[in-house]
Amino acid sequence: MESSRPLDALNNARDKKVIIDLKNNRQIIGTLKAFDIHINTVLEDAEEHAEGELKRKLSTVFIRGDTIVLISIA
Amino acid sequence: MESSRPLDALNNARDKKVIIDLKNNRQIIGTLKAFDIHINTVLEDAEEHAEGELKRKLSTVFIRGDTIVLISIA
Amino acid sequence: MESSRPLDALNNARDKKVIIDLKNNRQIIGTLKAFDIHINTVLEDAEEHAEGELKRKLSTVFIRGDTIVLISIA
Amino acid sequence: MESSRPLDALNNARDKKVIIDLKNNRQIIGTLKAFDIHINTVLEDAEEHAEGELKRKLSTVFIRGDTIVLISIA
Amino acid sequence: MESSRPLDALNNARDKKVIIDLKNNRQIIGTLKAFDIHINTVLEDAEEHAEGELKRKLSTVFIRGDTIVLISIA
Amino acid sequence: MESSRPLDALNNARDKKVIIDLKNNRQIIGTLKAFDIHINTVLEDAEEHAEGELKRKLSTVFIRGDTIVLISIA
Amino acid sequence: MESSRPLDALNNARDKKVIIDLKNNRQIIGTLKAFDIHINTVLEDAEEHAEGELKRKLSTVFIRGDTIVLISIA
Repeated sequence: MESSRPLDALNNARDKKVIIDLKNNRQIIGTLKAFDIHINTVLEDAEEHAEGELKRKLSTVFIRGDTIVLISIA
Repeated sequence: MESSRPLDALNNARDKKVIIDLKNNRQIIGTLKAFDIHINTVLEDAEEHAEGELKRKLSTVFIRGDTIVLISIA
Repeated sequence: MESSRPLDALNNARDKKVIIDLKNNRQIIGTLKAFDIHINTVLEDAEEHAEGELKRKLSTVFIRGDTIVLISIA
Repeated sequence: MESSRPLDALNNARDKKVIIDLKNNRQIIGTLKAFDIHINTVLEDAEEHAEGELKRKLSTVFIRGDTIVLISIA
Repeated sequence: MESSRPLDALNNARDKKVIIDLKNNRQIIGTLKAFDIHINTVLEDAEEHAEGELKRKLSTVFIRGDTIVLISIA
Repeated sequence: MESSRPLDALNNARDKKVIIDLKNNRQIIGTLKAFDIHINTVLEDAEEHAEGELKRKLSTVFIRGDTIVLISIA
Repeated sequence: MESSRPLDALNNARDKKVIIDLKNNRQIIGTLKAFDIHINTVLEDAEEHAEGELKRKLSTVFIRGDTIVLISIA
């Protein structure tokens, strides 16, 4: 992958499965559908995990960017 | 759903039921009536839940965007 | 109520009783007199509550917006 | 009092005694001399209180706005 | 003192001894040499105190504004 | 190394291994591929470590800048 | 030293040894090579200390400005 700007990496991950780690130690796993410069993101077919365990099915979820630690791109 | 920007997903959720997770571990469940670019939101027919339990009926509630972790769209 | 922007909901609540939840788990209950885009607000005839108990009568109180979780409109 | 903007309420409180609650649970009580749009404030003849007890006499004190929860106007 | 803006009070304190309370409960005491609109400040002949006890001599110290609670002007 | 601006140091580290310390006490170790002025960064061949122990292989990871404490350049 | 703006004091410290206190109670000690208006800084020949003890040698390190409490200039 050749990307000079961080958002290019997110752009390459559109419609792919990503793992988002939140500051509250939760993980949201789902398909990346949208993001903006604040790193607000929208996932579909999302699941919330905590301590390695499925907590909730979330369908479509909007995540506020400032609660995100990292986005792992498979 | 086809949405390239995160706020499009919220726009699609207007007048629908959403679940908002707050940084203080509370959940506000209600009908999404309004939001802005700071993710300040207004819900109607809202309920506050904590640890899966109904805490309060809130009627119309204004939520400051910076306290929001995520918005789950049914 | 028909309001497309969150601040419209606050505008409709002017001169009415509101409950403001703060990040420090206190509640300020009073009559909404003023607010701005930072959600700095001014209440009159205000009371501070904590854990469901009246703590202080506050007369006129200026609340800094970034300490606010939500504003419940009766 | 008729004030449509929150800072008007602070303006009306100039040269009057105010109680400022800080995020660190301290209170600064004194005469409001100056403030700006960040709610940076200057009090004179100030006292710091904690848990209802006088901790320090502060003479002139500059308080950084982002540490303020609320300003109670007598 | 006649000052309508908070930074005027800091300006009057240049070259004078001030006490700066930090969010981490430390105090920096020294001679105010410089400050800016973010309340970044520089003190000389500075000392760090914690719980009323001298912890360190700091000579010249740059303090980042967002860690400051208040500046007490003697 | 001659660099007058902090981002020059990051620029010199492109395609090299870096260690990123996060505010949640995790470390992300990997090859620096991209960064921006918010210090949002993208690492490849990344590993997450906690308390000196490998926790996860992360492949490509986007790290939100405001969760970063420091970036150690080998 | 005559400096009317805080960043002048940092400018005078270029290529000199500084001690940077971080919000996570760590100290980074090294030679100041670069800084910007966010107080993002780059140190060389850096060491991380915690509770007065050397934890790591860091060579070149980029420190995000918002994690800095103060910079002590020898």
